[in-house]
Amino acid sequence: MKLLHTADWHIGRTLNGFSLLDEQQAIFQQILQIAETEQVDGIVIAGDIYDRGVPSTSAVTALNQMLTSLNLEHHFPIYAVSGNHDSAERLNYGRDWLATQGFHLNTRLADAFQPIETPTTQIFLLPFFDPMDARAYYAKQGVDEETVKAIHSISDAMVRVVADMQAHFDPDKRHLLVTHFAVTPSGANPEELTSETTSKVGGLATLSTQQFNCFDYVMLGHIHTRNASPDRERMRYAGSPVKFNVKEANEQKGVDIVTITADQVTHTFKPLQPQTDLVALKAPWEQLTDPDFYDQQPRKQAWFAITIQDFDRSQHLNVRAQLQKIYGTVVELDYEDHHRPTATSRARRQIATLSPDEIVNAFFETVTGKDLSAEQAQLVDQIFTKLSKEHA
Amino acid sequence: MKLLHTADWHIGRTLNGFSLLDEQQAIFQQILQIAETEQVDGIVIAGDIYDRGVPSTSAVTALNQMLTSLNLEHHFPIYAVSGNHDSAERLNYGRDWLATQGFHLNTRLADAFQPIETPTTQIFLLPFFDPMDARAYYAKQGVDEETVKAIHSISDAMVRVVADMQAHFDPDKRHLLVTHFAVTPSGANPEELTSETTSKVGGLATLSTQQFNCFDYVMLGHIHTRNASPDRERMRYAGSPVKFNVKEANEQKGVDIVTITADQVTHTFKPLQPQTDLVALKAPWEQLTDPDFYDQQPRKQAWFAITIQDFDRSQHLNVRAQLQKIYGTVVELDYEDHHRPTATSRARRQIATLSPDEIVNAFFETVTGKDLSAEQAQLVDQIFTKLSKEHA
Repeated sequence: MKLLHTADWHIGRTLNGFSLLDEQQAIFQQILQIAETEQVDGIVIAGDIYDRGVPSTSAVTALNQMLTSLNLEHHFPIYAVSGNHDSAERLNYGRDWLATQGFHLNTRLADAFQPIETPTTQIFLLPFFDPMDARAYYAKQGVDEETVKAIHSISDAMVRVVADMQAHFDPDKRHLLVTHFAVTPSGANPEELTSETTSKVGGLATLSTQQFNCFDYVMLGHIHTRNASPDRERMRYAGSPVKFNVKEANEQKGVDIVTITADQVTHTFKPLQPQTDLVALKAPWEQLTDPDFYDQQPRKQAWFAITIQDFDRSQHLNVRAQLQKIYGTVVELDYEDHHRPTATSRARRQIATLSPDEIVNAFFETVTGKDLSAEQAQLVDQIFTKLSKEHA
Repeated sequence: MKLLHTADWHIGRTLNGFSLLDEQQAIFQQILQIAETEQVDGIVIAGDIYDRGVPSTSAVTALNQMLTSLNLEHHFPIYAVSGNHDSAERLNYGRDWLATQGFHLNTRLADAFQPIETPTTQIFLLPFFDPMDARAYYAKQGVDEETVKAIHSISDAMVRVVADMQAHFDPDKRHLLVTHFAVTPSGANPEELTSETTSKVGGLATLSTQQFNCFDYVMLGHIHTRNASPDRERMRYAGSPVKFNVKEANEQKGVDIVTITADQVTHTFKPLQPQTDLVALKAPWEQLTDPDFYDQQPRKQAWFAITIQDFDRSQHLNVRAQLQKIYGTVVELDYEDHHRPTATSRARRQIATLSPDEIVNAFFETVTGKDLSAEQAQLVDQIFTKLSKEHA
């Protein structure tokens, strides 16, 4: 059995106010192409399918087209779970019709214990959930109050959830898990997790690899960088297929092809080529505006995030306009100087085009001159995740 | 062939801030029961399935359960269109999976020309659309620019749309139309249309019955009162299954069972019984608080809309509290007096619990002492429909 593992599509996401929908659609076509070339038996989408609980109309239309193409036109089974960015309830709409066509989608913890059975493999689809969801589920199952109340962390909940999945294990089959959480190597300090999407890790205590040892293979979503996989061989992040963040500019995005045999589970990485790449430049003004330098860049064909070094803004006017004339789209503009102005370019941009956490970040940076720490970013994300759930 | 005709479910609607979801779920169970008893061959839902383009999470969950029950658990085919309250794009999500199970849903004009074929009948599903949608569609079809620009009103558009449907008519079959518009008897003045949901008619020029004469039967949605049907025998509104408005308090809600034979199409009305009825009372204070009067009322078992006649508010305190003690839930409280206070009870209610048009209505009434005229209400509805489309 051969599966294509992808995750964190975040359909409808913006990058500093620039829509990524065209890029997401182009990359989808590549994923479809890989699935066809590799003749996979199914596509795994490990959560954060949408970027928001209430996605825009164009995001809904785009996702519908992608999934229709994959499942109904090209007849690939789909194995998907919701992530923390999805509204579990909204994404659940139509679930039972999807299932009739081999599109298996779980958004509720209650649905996660019964695996999808293939002749050789059991696929468990465990959506993102929080400790309160687990408490509600187990209370409804008639588990005694004391035990329910003892579920404090996601780790507490997972012990029980995995045990209840194990009860459904068929010893003659392989056991795969698809889920959407931050998982770190057992024994590692979660603080040391080098995630390039730290601000999106938040809202969660992390889990450790040992909690999932009973599975032959774990296909993860949540962290956008596949290099952050907690176990390179057995528990992997597919990473986001599109660069969502300037910090991911130098990263090679892709998908995993996972091959399951009676003896082993192996994976191969298949790269995705951006249609419009995201290029980060950091150089002094003189270099950025030097033809010998900029002619080396994929200018007008990529999106640029530019940091100007040793820059005295009082000596320049229309900096962004000049750079855009040379490079095309400048999605982010920052300065490294000793004459920091009272507001960065980001904060001056129309606030309506920024996501809530980008606004907090920009404001914090304007005031303090520093980015939010990982811990602070996590707190901000936690608050907005909670708010967005309440309003979803 | 036998069909159950319903429309205007408006799932997620509120009445002056009170959620109608429980009532909608109870009434749904009755509709299901009627479908089973009558052994119908399908359920027609003629638009305004949701109350808003972006419905609440609980509305999404409730609708999903209802449709799953009808189509997947009880195996009724569904024939549905979107109405002006639905977001055509959002409701379209999952459409092609639904169709595999006999749940036929059209939300786009482009899909409306190909009928659903049964052995004896062609069912055309024409969603709500506006003249601009028709222009866009015909421009895409390569129709010349002058002809496209000549489409000004919905009536202009409908001439062409119906002709293009007729091109698909199988002369050996019956032709049914399911759609969602205001239709008046040919020759009638649309202004005289007595609709009890005038404020929701808006945003539309009305159509006339003669435009649909080529169909054997037309199942309409949009007007919430079945008595407003433009042709009692052939072109009927099912009406909303729930009372959404105090003006509908004395109306018997229900569904039509439509029987199609080779010779004729007939309909029978099947009533629905409210779980929590909406009762309108208009009486002087002395009568309202007289046990001989109120013991005759279904108090504590219904929702009450109360108008107090000849009332001097300066002589009374805690009017609402006193009435609620007697009657239970009071969803609307009005006064007929010569000492009108500066704000009605409605305007004092938390603004967050009112829908936009209710807020405008309440404000207008507070300032002028009158309700919005039909024309004014139409204008308000038009504006909010447009805004909600833009933000959907």
